[in-house]
Amino acid sequence: MSRASKIAGLKTALTTVSPQSIRAAAERIAPYAVRTPVLRSDRIDALAGCEVHFKCEHLQVTGSFKARGALNAVLSLSDAEAAVGVVAHSTGNHGAAVARAAQARGAPCAIVVPTVTPAAKLANIARYGPAVVQCEPSPAARRAASEAEAARLGGATIVHPFDDGRVICGQGTIGLELLEDVAGLDAILVPVSGGGMLGGVAAACAGTSTRVIAVEPAGKALGAALAAGERVIFDEAELEARPTLATVADAMPTRLLGPNLAWPLSYGLLDARDVLAVDDAAIEAALRLTASELKQAVEPAGAVALAGLLSPAFAALRDDPERPLRRVAAVVCGGNVDAGTLAAILAGGGD
Amino acid sequence: MSRASKIAGLKTALTTVSPQSIRAAAERIAPYAVRTPVLRSDRIDALAGCEVHFKCEHLQVTGSFKARGALNAVLSLSDAEAAVGVVAHSTGNHGAAVARAAQARGAPCAIVVPTVTPAAKLANIARYGPAVVQCEPSPAARRAASEAEAARLGGATIVHPFDDGRVICGQGTIGLELLEDVAGLDAILVPVSGGGMLGGVAAACAGTSTRVIAVEPAGKALGAALAAGERVIFDEAELEARPTLATVADAMPTRLLGPNLAWPLSYGLLDARDVLAVDDAAIEAALRLTASELKQAVEPAGAVALAGLLSPAFAALRDDPERPLRRVAAVVCGGNVDAGTLAAILAGGGD
Repeated sequence: MSRASKIAGLKTALTTVSPQSIRAAAERIAPYAVRTPVLRSDRIDALAGCEVHFKCEHLQVTGSFKARGALNAVLSLSDAEAAVGVVAHSTGNHGAAVARAAQARGAPCAIVVPTVTPAAKLANIARYGPAVVQCEPSPAARRAASEAEAARLGGATIVHPFDDGRVICGQGTIGLELLEDVAGLDAILVPVSGGGMLGGVAAACAGTSTRVIAVEPAGKALGAALAAGERVIFDEAELEARPTLATVADAMPTRLLGPNLAWPLSYGLLDARDVLAVDDAAIEAALRLTASELKQAVEPAGAVALAGLLSPAFAALRDDPERPLRRVAAVVCGGNVDAGTLAAILAGGGD
Repeated sequence: MSRASKIAGLKTALTTVSPQSIRAAAERIAPYAVRTPVLRSDRIDALAGCEVHFKCEHLQVTGSFKARGALNAVLSLSDAEAAVGVVAHSTGNHGAAVARAAQARGAPCAIVVPTVTPAAKLANIARYGPAVVQCEPSPAARRAASEAEAARLGGATIVHPFDDGRVICGQGTIGLELLEDVAGLDAILVPVSGGGMLGGVAAACAGTSTRVIAVEPAGKALGAALAAGERVIFDEAELEARPTLATVADAMPTRLLGPNLAWPLSYGLLDARDVLAVDDAAIEAALRLTASELKQAVEPAGAVALAGLLSPAFAALRDDPERPLRRVAAVVCGGNVDAGTLAAILAGGGD
């Protein structure tokens, strides 16, 4: 991809995900969303070698950051659209978020979830009262099931989990709040799956001195994609064989960034070196540290940013004399986890 | 105990633990202590049948509310006293708190802990650098070991874990913050062991419309003691046979309130009906709910107030037409727990 088309893609994306639209999202969701707190730990600062501010999106309504984007999307619908209803497919957190937003709006709602969804996430969706439909855990199956549900409701709006401008603007409010609440941030570490939060936070930080660093489950290879300027660097056989990432962070199975907005924003606003990959062992160790030091009970995805902070690759970024990292934020993105899974990971530490 | 001596005892205690001295404590500890956040959960509100505000003392420095009292006590010492040093005996949390306060003051420090102290609590003490001495888990053994350590340091000050005016004023700042941060509280639920936090919060709420409700591990029988007007309602043989309470809340083994201040404050300021007793099963269920709904990883003692809130006895207090409870706070008092213990309790739920 040429430099010119990179800039053109970014400019187009920024017309949808603009500073003004992120600010409008913040106002729109304020009555329903939590301005989440920021936590600190001396010990984690010492381990990370810099000052770390944890943005607690697991304390967001519905237990994950997804509430922001879903609320912005559903509250943006016209009354006529809302009356027909909304549909979402989700590994769990986006489903709860859209169900909660539909409840706030008084809109009919159906949520499509893969059969592998953890029980805690299913229960967390069910409490907001939508129709819940299970499907096979593949992109094709969830697309088909979502379209069937939307038709059943009479033409309901499908709220995409990440590649939707209103959703991305909602997630971008995380960046807005961090910039307001923590002065002088050198970087924000954002877990990346489909790229909605990454794109939104990157857009919120565009034009500031705060960098965005993506943290991915190993195997996603976003850094290589950004370096190559190609959203898809895997061949078709590979994507068909492994349509989702194998990671303990069950909320983050998506291999590719959304093509319409998530990719152009991330490609246009991130440095290809600012991607950290973390494996299951690192995520689980970070989850244990989140419990022991921050006293927070999170899902594996919620520990991904901390796992990135503790990686050797982060230390290299931090110590780059040309752009050192002295004060960073990390997004703790969700806390919806089965007690049994949490117990098993807590018990699994030799540390 | 006569009504006249009850009032005389309270009046004397309130000269030490006065509104002014609690305010002075708040100013003294402010540079070192956290103004802890307050968390909410719709689901817990529904389960408790009223609005509940959780005061997050497990997010306090050192992972428990004990930091407040210890900081106030150690920062109140003269320079000469501080130069000699401080000693504390503790089941863990007070030890970490005094060690941290000594570090802040630059004072030598020794901490006496019973041999049964969980590993996480030992590690949490050790990180602040004091001398750590283990002793048998009995009041007599800890007293002897503390006095030996104080002598070794050349006449160090022993900071009592609860029956000390400066400690109680420090714990009282929890009540002060709640009254400032949550308008219209009908009651504050306070876990009670030796009674330092109970007495301090009760003193902070004296002269307001906010009641204090104590929550104890079953077997302590504080309600019966308050009703009888007698601090000690057990016979000597019983106290010798069982010097500590058998409870999963390892931070709360103390059977009797401190005689000097904790008892007179509690007896003078609490209604004998305002004591809730909770057993291990209720504490463990509350701990699981704290993880799943509040996303907080706490020690068993940290779930005691929530266990009280979910007890039938609380429902009776709540629904008393003469003094209904519509908005309450509960103190989540600590979060220092071994990963293995936390894992076992999380995995233990059939719920």
